[in-house]
Amino acid sequence: MFQKIKRIVLGRSLKSDELDHEKFSVLWGLPILSSDAISSVSYACEEILMVLIPVLGLASYRPLMGVAFAIICLLMILVFSYRQTISAYPQGGGSYIVASENLGKTAGLVAASSLAIDYVLTVAVSICAGTAAITSAFPSLLPYKTLIAFVMVSLLAIGNLRGMRESSILFGLPTYMFMISILIMIITGIIKVLVLKEIPPVSADLHQPMQDLTLVLFLKAFSSGCTALTGVEAVSDGIPNFKAPAQKNAKRVLTLLACIVFMIFVGVCFLATMYHVVPNENVTAIAQISSHVFGNDTLMFYIVQATTAIILTMAANTAFADLPLLFSILAKDGYVPRQFMARGSRLSFSNGIIMLFLLSASLVMIFHANTHHLMPLYAVGVFLSFTLSQAGMFVRWLKTKEGKWKHKAFINGLGTIITAITCMIIAASKFFHGAWIVLLCIPIFVFVMRKIHQHYEQVKRDLDITEINDSLIRKQPVPTRIILPVDSINRSFIKAVNYAYTLHCDNMEIYHVDVDAYATQKLQHKYGCLQLDIPLCCEQAPYRNINETLLHHIEEEAKHLLPQQTLTIIIPQFVVTHVQKNILHNQTSLLLKHKLSYMRNVSIISVPYVLHE
Amino acid sequence: MFQKIKRIVLGRSLKSDELDHEKFSVLWGLPILSSDAISSVSYACEEILMVLIPVLGLASYRPLMGVAFAIICLLMILVFSYRQTISAYPQGGGSYIVASENLGKTAGLVAASSLAIDYVLTVAVSICAGTAAITSAFPSLLPYKTLIAFVMVSLLAIGNLRGMRESSILFGLPTYMFMISILIMIITGIIKVLVLKEIPPVSADLHQPMQDLTLVLFLKAFSSGCTALTGVEAVSDGIPNFKAPAQKNAKRVLTLLACIVFMIFVGVCFLATMYHVVPNENVTAIAQISSHVFGNDTLMFYIVQATTAIILTMAANTAFADLPLLFSILAKDGYVPRQFMARGSRLSFSNGIIMLFLLSASLVMIFHANTHHLMPLYAVGVFLSFTLSQAGMFVRWLKTKEGKWKHKAFINGLGTIITAITCMIIAASKFFHGAWIVLLCIPIFVFVMRKIHQHYEQVKRDLDITEINDSLIRKQPVPTRIILPVDSINRSFIKAVNYAYTLHCDNMEIYHVDVDAYATQKLQHKYGCLQLDIPLCCEQAPYRNINETLLHHIEEEAKHLLPQQTLTIIIPQFVVTHVQKNILHNQTSLLLKHKLSYMRNVSIISVPYVLHE
Repeated sequence: MFQKIKRIVLGRSLKSDELDHEKFSVLWGLPILSSDAISSVSYACEEILMVLIPVLGLASYRPLMGVAFAIICLLMILVFSYRQTISAYPQGGGSYIVASENLGKTAGLVAASSLAIDYVLTVAVSICAGTAAITSAFPSLLPYKTLIAFVMVSLLAIGNLRGMRESSILFGLPTYMFMISILIMIITGIIKVLVLKEIPPVSADLHQPMQDLTLVLFLKAFSSGCTALTGVEAVSDGIPNFKAPAQKNAKRVLTLLACIVFMIFVGVCFLATMYHVVPNENVTAIAQISSHVFGNDTLMFYIVQATTAIILTMAANTAFADLPLLFSILAKDGYVPRQFMARGSRLSFSNGIIMLFLLSASLVMIFHANTHHLMPLYAVGVFLSFTLSQAGMFVRWLKTKEGKWKHKAFINGLGTIITAITCMIIAASKFFHGAWIVLLCIPIFVFVMRKIHQHYEQVKRDLDITEINDSLIRKQPVPTRIILPVDSINRSFIKAVNYAYTLHCDNMEIYHVDVDAYATQKLQHKYGCLQLDIPLCCEQAPYRNINETLLHHIEEEAKHLLPQQTLTIIIPQFVVTHVQKNILHNQTSLLLKHKLSYMRNVSIISVPYVLHE
Repeated sequence: MFQKIKRIVLGRSLKSDELDHEKFSVLWGLPILSSDAISSVSYACEEILMVLIPVLGLASYRPLMGVAFAIICLLMILVFSYRQTISAYPQGGGSYIVASENLGKTAGLVAASSLAIDYVLTVAVSICAGTAAITSAFPSLLPYKTLIAFVMVSLLAIGNLRGMRESSILFGLPTYMFMISILIMIITGIIKVLVLKEIPPVSADLHQPMQDLTLVLFLKAFSSGCTALTGVEAVSDGIPNFKAPAQKNAKRVLTLLACIVFMIFVGVCFLATMYHVVPNENVTAIAQISSHVFGNDTLMFYIVQATTAIILTMAANTAFADLPLLFSILAKDGYVPRQFMARGSRLSFSNGIIMLFLLSASLVMIFHANTHHLMPLYAVGVFLSFTLSQAGMFVRWLKTKEGKWKHKAFINGLGTIITAITCMIIAASKFFHGAWIVLLCIPIFVFVMRKIHQHYEQVKRDLDITEINDSLIRKQPVPTRIILPVDSINRSFIKAVNYAYTLHCDNMEIYHVDVDAYATQKLQHKYGCLQLDIPLCCEQAPYRNINETLLHHIEEEAKHLLPQQTLTIIIPQFVVTHVQKNILHNQTSLLLKHKLSYMRNVSIISVPYVLHE
């Protein structure tokens, strides 16, 4: 039943050697890995204006272009830096790998934690923003906002569980549609403004500047705009997902991504300046621009709105592609549970996808799909991992001194300084709005991951055998001692006794806990009729605690074992094939087995007696 | 940890032979078993007036006394009938026992279902009404109504889990306090009215009668007032709880109970008539009377209020004493899960108490501690079980023809007719207000109980051995075939191999599921180093479904067993002593064991390897 549903939703199982066909070309890698970066442009411009306009009013538009160019410069530095990372790390150079290889494990784990937090937030923020875009287009859907967001996250999770290549086609096309429609909007807008000289009247909402532009204000605006750069690292994380030549393809995608972000971000900021866009709770900046360019209620207006909504949803897909990959790497190194390493029946890292789904869906539910409460948590993590990754690359060049190492070290060194400064600006300006949560979670995650690693190391030491040879196998095994608990003489017990005889053990005892003298007498009589050569041992339990008495007896027996001897407990287990009928039977044997499993020298045999139903 | 908390909350464990000391004398049996019946008087008078006043207004008070006397007559008939039941059933003559012995199992189960529903409702209604009394005295507590009700139910459950005698002292005293304070109120009121001739002015709320008293109206009022009689059957159910001579003591308690109900009910109705009490959402009838008698804000007014609130809570305790007993009887007969038969560490029927707690607490939560929505469900069940019990007694006298059987049959026959008519009146007048739920639930419960009984009977047939002798034990046991699955050669596997050798089995195989060719090669090499005489069998699983492949292999092997041969699967189980660390390890072996337990000829051996932590 469950299997059938799974097959319908996820598609047929794929064999392990079908893995190679499931990789990205440049054409499909671009939309999959860049949708996060590209979609964030749609709110970055708005975020900058939200900082500037309350203070500067009409005078906000000159610094807007300044902030935009600062961010574009940062983007260029990041692209150059990350191209070097892609060259150096063909297996995927996520911040975690780069930082832990060059700066030590702790730096790597800090990078991994901040990235993980950011992936979850990417899903939550993008989905909520996407939902908001839908509900502003169709206000009648407003009451179902949380539900819509939840359905979207679920669809993404299912799409990703189905596997990678199918998801490229499913999720790649809308990204291209967004790029094209937004570029048409920008070009049309620029032609209208610069060639046809159609300048709309300045909005009445704008007041005169209340103060001059200060450095603090500029930095605040800059930190808000930095959300435009989230998602740039996705490409270098995802190298193993590319078709061969993977590194070359990844670099191409990164460069293309930067060009697209550049064009759209600068274009949108320019048009926002021309049309004097004022951020507004009901209409997004993009929507305002597109209504100026195409007019309200035109087809193109709706296309821009729709593709914006869709790409925001698709941005979440970047995280669905990358977080499971990051976790599989962490799992391989033993810093998160091993289960994240296993590929599911459709070859995707199912457990990572499911975890991301649960966490992001919870955030969506808790925040009732409200983007604004999530925003301040965003970006700190990304820039922290940028910084650690750049610093790692810088240290690497200093150590290896290979090729043009001075040139390369300069680029990554500059990247380190710039991203570190940006990270501090973001942390400081958003600290009390929520960044503190992220800065608190990171050390906690690092601590937990270290603990998990310690545990796995201990298990490995415990299980590993340094030299495997025949001396490990005992030549003269000490016969086991068997205890078979009995409650009443019935077919299940008889089956267990017959089974016990096949084990050829002459050191055996039948054990009964006596809570009712009359019942025990009856049992002893019936037992006599069987004429067995095994002693029946009865022990009184005045407090009716059958399990505890039995456990105590086994503990005592285990103390008197010979060296290397095992105590074997045979548990006749009554099995009801209808699961729901199990409630009608005491499940104490489960508890008993659980407790017995903690005893070093005790093995447990379940002899099932299946009811004829 | 859990054990410690349990001991603090519930007290030390009691031995089975301490059971005898935990029984009721007349002094403590009366408050424990009668609080339901006595407390219901506090709302019965009000319920009658609620039916009469909207129609009759000022003219309601003459029929009030008429209805009250009709109910008192019913009470007398019930007391005479139940005294006969107590004589005939020294082991406790609940409706279930009487009806199933004399009218057949189905009648018995109908009685049991209706009683069970009523016990749950008794707890919910009484607790909600008690909470309402508290919140009307202290309106500032109104927002915490549901919480207060929940805490009360919890305290009752804990008190009952602690055991019977301690609960008598804990819960008995307040019942006596209520009786005394209410009797003081009645006597003072009668003296004031009849001797001192203090008649207060008639309330302004009362209108002139809108119509004459009709039979329908009288019957509606009567059916609402019948809630006063719920709880009368508790005494005859609880005979085994009495100290010897149990029957005599039970009869005394029943007679005393009737006298008290008579006095309080008639007294309250009389004073309600004198003072022209009008039901009111904020002030109960008892509170109105007591404020007339003692004046507002006097100490006695508060005492009456408080004891009323407390006795309503204590009424719930009757159900906590009796439902677990009813369920233990049903469990003994195999109509409800066997777990209800077991006495807990404090000798009370813990599972019944916990179930009643869960159900009634749910009702309290669902209805937000609102009494009025629960009321219409009440009383139908009680009178249905009354009727069945009386009819059972009537049939019994006709069959046995012992002693003065004609006289006895007349009393129970009259009881049958009267209670049957009452039951029909209640069902008809409250059907659409909620009685239909009860009338729907009863057949469902009967059906489920029959199904459970069928299951237990089948299990019994399956397990029972008609003739126990040595022919059941196989003289020449067929040696078992052992399969030991291996994932990698580690200490846990070595331990399992060494254990397997102690079983002296020469029909054994090591089985490996191959999901990674390289890992399998390594395994084969290491296995070679061990120089074992057991074959290693490797099977490929291209879909990475290790468990399914293993299960399929076991199924195939099980098909090729010799007659009477067993297949034994040895599962090396890796045990982590810190429970929370289990999440770091694949728990697939649990699922595997669960699925294997459904195979008839497969035994499972767990060889635990406990991590050194």
